[in-house]
Amino acid sequence: MDRNHQHRSQPIYYGAAYYDEYMPVSRVEDDMALMERAGMNVIRVAESTWSTWEPREGEFDFTRLYRVLDGARRHGISVIVGTPTYAIPPWLARKYPDILVETHTGPSRYGPRQNMDITHPGYRKNCEIIIRKLLEEVQPYENVIGFQLDNETKPYDTCGPRAQAMFLDWLKEKFGTVEAMNKAYGLAYWSNSLGCWEDMPDVRGTICGSLAAEFEAFQRHLVTEFLYWQRSIVDEYRRPDQFVTHNFDFDWKGCSYGIQPNVNHFDIMNGLTVAGCDIYHRSGGELTGMEASFCGDLIRSVNGGENFLVLETQAQGNTEWLPYPGQLRLQAFSLLASGAKQIEYWHWHSIHNGIENYWKGVLSHDFTPGVVYQEVCTIGQDLARLGEHLTGFRRKSRVAILVSNRSLTGIKHSATPSEATPQYNDCLWWLYDVLYRFNIACDILPDTVRDFSGYELVIVPCLYCAGEKLIGALRQYVEDGGHLLATFRSFFTDENLQIRHESQPYGMTDVFGVTYDNFTVPMDVPDVSGWMELLCPAENTEVLAVYNHPAYAGYAAATLHPFGQGSAAYLGTMLCRQKLEELLERLLPAFGIPLPTLRCPVIIKEGVNNLGRRMRYLLNYSDGPCAVPAPEDCVELLSGKTYSSGVEVPLEPWNAAILETADFQ
Amino acid sequence: MDRNHQHRSQPIYYGAAYYDEYMPVSRVEDDMALMERAGMNVIRVAESTWSTWEPREGEFDFTRLYRVLDGARRHGISVIVGTPTYAIPPWLARKYPDILVETHTGPSRYGPRQNMDITHPGYRKNCEIIIRKLLEEVQPYENVIGFQLDNETKPYDTCGPRAQAMFLDWLKEKFGTVEAMNKAYGLAYWSNSLGCWEDMPDVRGTICGSLAAEFEAFQRHLVTEFLYWQRSIVDEYRRPDQFVTHNFDFDWKGCSYGIQPNVNHFDIMNGLTVAGCDIYHRSGGELTGMEASFCGDLIRSVNGGENFLVLETQAQGNTEWLPYPGQLRLQAFSLLASGAKQIEYWHWHSIHNGIENYWKGVLSHDFTPGVVYQEVCTIGQDLARLGEHLTGFRRKSRVAILVSNRSLTGIKHSATPSEATPQYNDCLWWLYDVLYRFNIACDILPDTVRDFSGYELVIVPCLYCAGEKLIGALRQYVEDGGHLLATFRSFFTDENLQIRHESQPYGMTDVFGVTYDNFTVPMDVPDVSGWMELLCPAENTEVLAVYNHPAYAGYAAATLHPFGQGSAAYLGTMLCRQKLEELLERLLPAFGIPLPTLRCPVIIKEGVNNLGRRMRYLLNYSDGPCAVPAPEDCVELLSGKTYSSGVEVPLEPWNAAILETADFQ
Amino acid sequence: MDRNHQHRSQPIYYGAAYYDEYMPVSRVEDDMALMERAGMNVIRVAESTWSTWEPREGEFDFTRLYRVLDGARRHGISVIVGTPTYAIPPWLARKYPDILVETHTGPSRYGPRQNMDITHPGYRKNCEIIIRKLLEEVQPYENVIGFQLDNETKPYDTCGPRAQAMFLDWLKEKFGTVEAMNKAYGLAYWSNSLGCWEDMPDVRGTICGSLAAEFEAFQRHLVTEFLYWQRSIVDEYRRPDQFVTHNFDFDWKGCSYGIQPNVNHFDIMNGLTVAGCDIYHRSGGELTGMEASFCGDLIRSVNGGENFLVLETQAQGNTEWLPYPGQLRLQAFSLLASGAKQIEYWHWHSIHNGIENYWKGVLSHDFTPGVVYQEVCTIGQDLARLGEHLTGFRRKSRVAILVSNRSLTGIKHSATPSEATPQYNDCLWWLYDVLYRFNIACDILPDTVRDFSGYELVIVPCLYCAGEKLIGALRQYVEDGGHLLATFRSFFTDENLQIRHESQPYGMTDVFGVTYDNFTVPMDVPDVSGWMELLCPAENTEVLAVYNHPAYAGYAAATLHPFGQGSAAYLGTMLCRQKLEELLERLLPAFGIPLPTLRCPVIIKEGVNNLGRRMRYLLNYSDGPCAVPAPEDCVELLSGKTYSSGVEVPLEPWNAAILETADFQ
Repeated sequence: MDRNHQHRSQPIYYGAAYYDEYMPVSRVEDDMALMERAGMNVIRVAESTWSTWEPREGEFDFTRLYRVLDGARRHGISVIVGTPTYAIPPWLARKYPDILVETHTGPSRYGPRQNMDITHPGYRKNCEIIIRKLLEEVQPYENVIGFQLDNETKPYDTCGPRAQAMFLDWLKEKFGTVEAMNKAYGLAYWSNSLGCWEDMPDVRGTICGSLAAEFEAFQRHLVTEFLYWQRSIVDEYRRPDQFVTHNFDFDWKGCSYGIQPNVNHFDIMNGLTVAGCDIYHRSGGELTGMEASFCGDLIRSVNGGENFLVLETQAQGNTEWLPYPGQLRLQAFSLLASGAKQIEYWHWHSIHNGIENYWKGVLSHDFTPGVVYQEVCTIGQDLARLGEHLTGFRRKSRVAILVSNRSLTGIKHSATPSEATPQYNDCLWWLYDVLYRFNIACDILPDTVRDFSGYELVIVPCLYCAGEKLIGALRQYVEDGGHLLATFRSFFTDENLQIRHESQPYGMTDVFGVTYDNFTVPMDVPDVSGWMELLCPAENTEVLAVYNHPAYAGYAAATLHPFGQGSAAYLGTMLCRQKLEELLERLLPAFGIPLPTLRCPVIIKEGVNNLGRRMRYLLNYSDGPCAVPAPEDCVELLSGKTYSSGVEVPLEPWNAAILETADFQ
Repeated sequence: MDRNHQHRSQPIYYGAAYYDEYMPVSRVEDDMALMERAGMNVIRVAESTWSTWEPREGEFDFTRLYRVLDGARRHGISVIVGTPTYAIPPWLARKYPDILVETHTGPSRYGPRQNMDITHPGYRKNCEIIIRKLLEEVQPYENVIGFQLDNETKPYDTCGPRAQAMFLDWLKEKFGTVEAMNKAYGLAYWSNSLGCWEDMPDVRGTICGSLAAEFEAFQRHLVTEFLYWQRSIVDEYRRPDQFVTHNFDFDWKGCSYGIQPNVNHFDIMNGLTVAGCDIYHRSGGELTGMEASFCGDLIRSVNGGENFLVLETQAQGNTEWLPYPGQLRLQAFSLLASGAKQIEYWHWHSIHNGIENYWKGVLSHDFTPGVVYQEVCTIGQDLARLGEHLTGFRRKSRVAILVSNRSLTGIKHSATPSEATPQYNDCLWWLYDVLYRFNIACDILPDTVRDFSGYELVIVPCLYCAGEKLIGALRQYVEDGGHLLATFRSFFTDENLQIRHESQPYGMTDVFGVTYDNFTVPMDVPDVSGWMELLCPAENTEVLAVYNHPAYAGYAAATLHPFGQGSAAYLGTMLCRQKLEELLERLLPAFGIPLPTLRCPVIIKEGVNNLGRRMRYLLNYSDGPCAVPAPEDCVELLSGKTYSSGVEVPLEPWNAAILETADFQ
Repeated sequence: MDRNHQHRSQPIYYGAAYYDEYMPVSRVEDDMALMERAGMNVIRVAESTWSTWEPREGEFDFTRLYRVLDGARRHGISVIVGTPTYAIPPWLARKYPDILVETHTGPSRYGPRQNMDITHPGYRKNCEIIIRKLLEEVQPYENVIGFQLDNETKPYDTCGPRAQAMFLDWLKEKFGTVEAMNKAYGLAYWSNSLGCWEDMPDVRGTICGSLAAEFEAFQRHLVTEFLYWQRSIVDEYRRPDQFVTHNFDFDWKGCSYGIQPNVNHFDIMNGLTVAGCDIYHRSGGELTGMEASFCGDLIRSVNGGENFLVLETQAQGNTEWLPYPGQLRLQAFSLLASGAKQIEYWHWHSIHNGIENYWKGVLSHDFTPGVVYQEVCTIGQDLARLGEHLTGFRRKSRVAILVSNRSLTGIKHSATPSEATPQYNDCLWWLYDVLYRFNIACDILPDTVRDFSGYELVIVPCLYCAGEKLIGALRQYVEDGGHLLATFRSFFTDENLQIRHESQPYGMTDVFGVTYDNFTVPMDVPDVSGWMELLCPAENTEVLAVYNHPAYAGYAAATLHPFGQGSAAYLGTMLCRQKLEELLERLLPAFGIPLPTLRCPVIIKEGVNNLGRRMRYLLNYSDGPCAVPAPEDCVELLSGKTYSSGVEVPLEPWNAAILETADFQ
């Protein structure tokens, strides 16, 4: 097993995606020199430019690739090579018209990336050819340190006849008989029961949430299978020291937001040696650092707690994201503080045409080394100077959040009132936000985990879909002394998204000491929104919050209950942030989680570096200066100053401090 | 003629739709026992579950039906059997791919109910088979009291080639020549005149509102024809004591709202023995009782004034509708007070999958008899105890509202400014709302009525489309002493929705004593919104309201005019509610309609019961207690207390009182 | 060259579009008499009524045309004959099903006007037949004064296979090789490079803004070519005294708004003898006169500064546009004051069916001569009485605004944040609005102009796309003493919409004395919105405005810089109106543009009439009376009163005064 085989003492990688292919003039030598000067030491190349490498079928031209690889080598810059398969060339779409993915809304047109059917045999065949050819070409290059499989792969909602036939096989395999499926999915409803497998209709019309969600699970599986397949090809060419990664992304709400609905990050990790991701975040007056923190925690967890790669993050990004002075550097430290060992901007230069010509890079369109480049230089200098202190940064979390793609999909397909009702990631974001503001370190766990013994507290937001084994594991965890915090809608359905017909929360009423059979959307109920379960607490259950409304008198809104050696809290509603903060201020200490005195906008991330020393990143997410007392005798690495315990470390607006303690305590 | 043949002294039917087919475990015996305990005495079965009865073509399985019918029989519960044709099984969609309805937006997919082309011969053939088979199966059951034809039938916007060919025949029949149609519909506009019938284009593209509206009239006719056809089959099997009904629904704006645009309720009634409907309403803090009142008045009128069936209404319903304590019972009395003789919840149990799994029933998903079931029990007890007093409740209205589907469609297709301009049901709702708040009893009449002599006042909201005969009848009505209240946009077009080229309101200028040729959308005009006609009153016309804006000085906004023995008021604009209330406070007494002193939130519904006694339902739609003086010596049936005239009857929040007077006065 | 050959001393034409075809009853004689009585002297006929003239293919019926032409002749009314090709008859759509245009959203349906593929050979063939036939029919009529080619022609987004094949030829012609195009459009991005011309995918899917914009340029060309082709047919029939015009319209945002994106007005003008247009404007409390002024300035400029035709404007128009008393007359003078020599209402009578039955004409549906007709009569009397003073009105502008369809399209296809970012016409409107309110006369120039020497000031709003020649001409203009005012986003891309990779504003940094490489969307920056460039001024550049936000300290928001004999101002952001007004109050005098003391709501338009006298239209766009000092000794033509210089001329609400000075100074 070679996962995370890279030595932790490797330098921090710092760089950008580089596209000679998109340049109006060749600037390789100039750019590599600028990068070197900025302290950059890695670029990512080749993904998304298939038509450059193979302009006509079977006709290859790697001139631009050599040019970049050679240029990088000359300047001591390492290279990550991406397989170019996420954007197909026109000739391939012309050769196989049905290679363009058919989705819920019909056939696609050529033009965008990620518009192909990843199950198409012709696509696979031509992918293999270009991947093999590319890997052959880059084999001689020592400075190629690793490979990225495809990019931000998704199923692209493939649901043409082939995908539907594959899905039918998937269902047959899962259920054996239509009767079993009819029952598991409740297809009798509205007369949708199948009489035989041949009756299976186009899945796109279904009103059965279970079936629709199963199709999405199948689609996620296609992504996993596709990347495993690419990995198997890459393995034939790569050196042992070269890593294999993928660029994971997240759900999107104007920026990275919650878990990715269409991909199983944790499953795909089995096909990688190290996890990578792209993180895009709000900026300017809206910068909070929350996106970097959440996405970092998630991908670090995907990566088994080891340091991961940030394969893309914004230098300037979208027009409205232009960073204030200092913010780029603050974000770089924020990513390292979440466990990144590489920060690559997307992208080096601002592209002069196409749909992302206003998604700006390190350099603006005019290639002038401007204010953003200058800030990049200071970051590069910091990383070069402090590299040995920053590498191998490991965090340890007492708290884990359990996330569930099945639950996300299930809630999406539950026919609840649209706008008012929070979606899965809204709920996840709501909880994580307070933990982030409280400076509580978290790991993020998939719903396949059964052993939670390493954590003081496990949080399960909207675990809508929970099977018996997971329920058993969570029960055992509390029984054995763990603490559990679950929200509304958890434990509501079985693994097929059938709503349980037993008492809610299913299988956990004795653990939480609570049950309910009525819920609604709050109107005119103070301090709550989105969802509201009318909780009936058991006798020895502590009521943490009630609903301040005459119609809901006598019900609890949040509860705490001892169970076995541990305890379990249940939130029946979406409290406003202030109320949630008050509740957690009380619960966390009770669960054995110390509450840091520092709070947002000062973010603190603690861990241990490769030198075995305790490290504390202090990040000031505000436009005002502040000061933080040194928690013990330490060195502030950026300034080189030493601080005795309790002496105040100054923090400029949108700026960071990095405290290192000599002795590991 | 067997319409409404049921004896008025039959008990109030109270129950729920029951779906053994959707159950994760069989609970028939438990559920029937729970129902019996709750005082329930009727269930509706079989509609929408075709794939259960005929899982493969020609292969039938009525096990679950027998189970339910037997269980109901054991517990003294009557059964309404619905034909299962509004949701087709997968094998039928597979057999006839074109059975899936083609609409304005193209072909449909399998999955939802109501997605079939009701003109498809294969659909009809297979409908007939399953209906006959089902009716044979249930013939032995004495406790089957009636049949429901299909469910909430609509044309489903069928406009595939067959429907368009049928529509062309419909047009040929109506007009004889293309020249006649060109003229009637003004097709010369934008060069749309037909040279011959073969020129007829796909009607979906037309910009001729008359043609588009005619197509909708044709579509409504398809529904009527389809239900007549089902009735003819049912009649071959049913006993004389078994009724035939249909589940009418209404326009929808988050809940039942105004008249149903796609169905001719009054026409279809000729194919039924008793009218049924479903009524869904706002709840919790938004409960006003308005939906129950309007829909009840409409369906009672459809049913010739006789007591009707509520085949569906919510127990819990949509997540945000969870009733406050007491509201379910209040609504039950509200429905009875509108003339219902049956109240059936949709549905008994909350479904565990499919698109309505959050539309909750009497029981929540856990089948626990919860607070909603408890309230159902109290209602059942009330009905059992007071049954003979509550049956045969008849209302008498001095006021009729004339409604017009042709006008609704016409206004929809008139190219008026979208958001600002009220649609037909907005205007209907605006007027009915004040009548409801004033506790004025109303009947609702179709635009085919020609004799209005039974009413003191006829209200015609937005009678956009009015033919000569209707105009003549209304003129005669006023001439003979009736009172007419019409709103803006009335009498504007002929039966083909051609705007009249004579003075407006067409054919009625002498009746209203008013004309106008300019109208606009009010901006910055106090107290009015949506529409504004600049009325020029005749000499002996009383101006009831003017526009408070310099540009519209000299015009009237509302007028009153004597004509013959009667009088006619015209509202040229949509007054705000307060102004409309002030205007009606003045007009209604002038029209001989006494104004009750009680007003919303206390609703009063008067009538006479089977015992020949005057009944008054007092309904408190508020969260505060109040008291109402007894209008005469009476018994409050729920408490059994007697009240002398003038003594205050207390009304708890969201609660009802039912006053019965011994002597019919 | 016979452009604008009509003698300037011809009378003002005043009339309406007339549709006997749409009449429920024939009213030709009555209507012509009403028109004559109202002082109307022109009608437009025949456009959009092909199915009346040719009800079946090859079968013609011009009865209604003769009736109207004869009626007009009897009443001394001139006629403009429109070719009827913008609305096809049903038989033509039946004959060629693919005549219905295929657009980005797929095939069209029959029904609307402007739904055909203007490149379809069958369409062209049948167009030619009906045009020739119609022109033959009207040849004998002396009172036919001119022809209108088609109506509001657009490409209707034609992108079916034929159009795409033609576009491919267009690209081949433009680029010669795919390599040249790949480079010019940056198609390497996302692997879109073509390997050969056959690889060209459906252009509708492209994510290359350059390619998408080029396709729109091609579509605009199709319109030009189509109208040239119609002109060539018309020329075979028309007399030398008969003009050829087209009805240009504008972008639309609830009313006429900015330049027309889909048509090259200036190009098409080469196929006309006189320009015509339709202008639709807000009304009632929202009337400002801005639409009439902008559209008038644009079409006057298209027409080479000569008087143009208003072929359509509203009498009543949309329901919400009903004019206040006086507004119709005010608008008539406003149009004349912008250089119109003809005002035609759309339309004479309000249509009784079809999609425009609520777009009302001079007469309401009841044909009664109502208040609008009465106001039309007063206008007609004014025109008749003052005709010789009003004809040949010429304006002279010191200021020109350079408009660019390529820039509009380019900005539309640039992937900038959607809602917050202003589109091209928003920016144009923002600037023109202040000039209008300041009573600064403007000409509007296309981006093909190279000689700006006639103007003191050239304004270039968002000149996103600028080629070397235009840049050179503007440089030279300033060098030679001209003044230039450009906004943000100008000079950003080359002619292929590739973003320049040199310093911004490209080719003009020395002219403006400013450069920038960062820009963003302002958040929480006072007084600016939509776009924000962080300008770095050169040493001798005057900073006119800065951003009041700590993150943007040190950057300029607006600048002024001397260059050669002239000067150049640059606006890096969209200032709020008040700030823009303050800035222009300072800049305009500096550029040699006197600032009138009169401001909105009093609009003044100066010029010279055919008598060689200075004319001043004073237009009061408010509901309050005011008075304006006579700028010199003059006659107020409407009242016939004389005013000595400085004496106040009274202006009633929504009313006009027309001052004529005896001596041309």
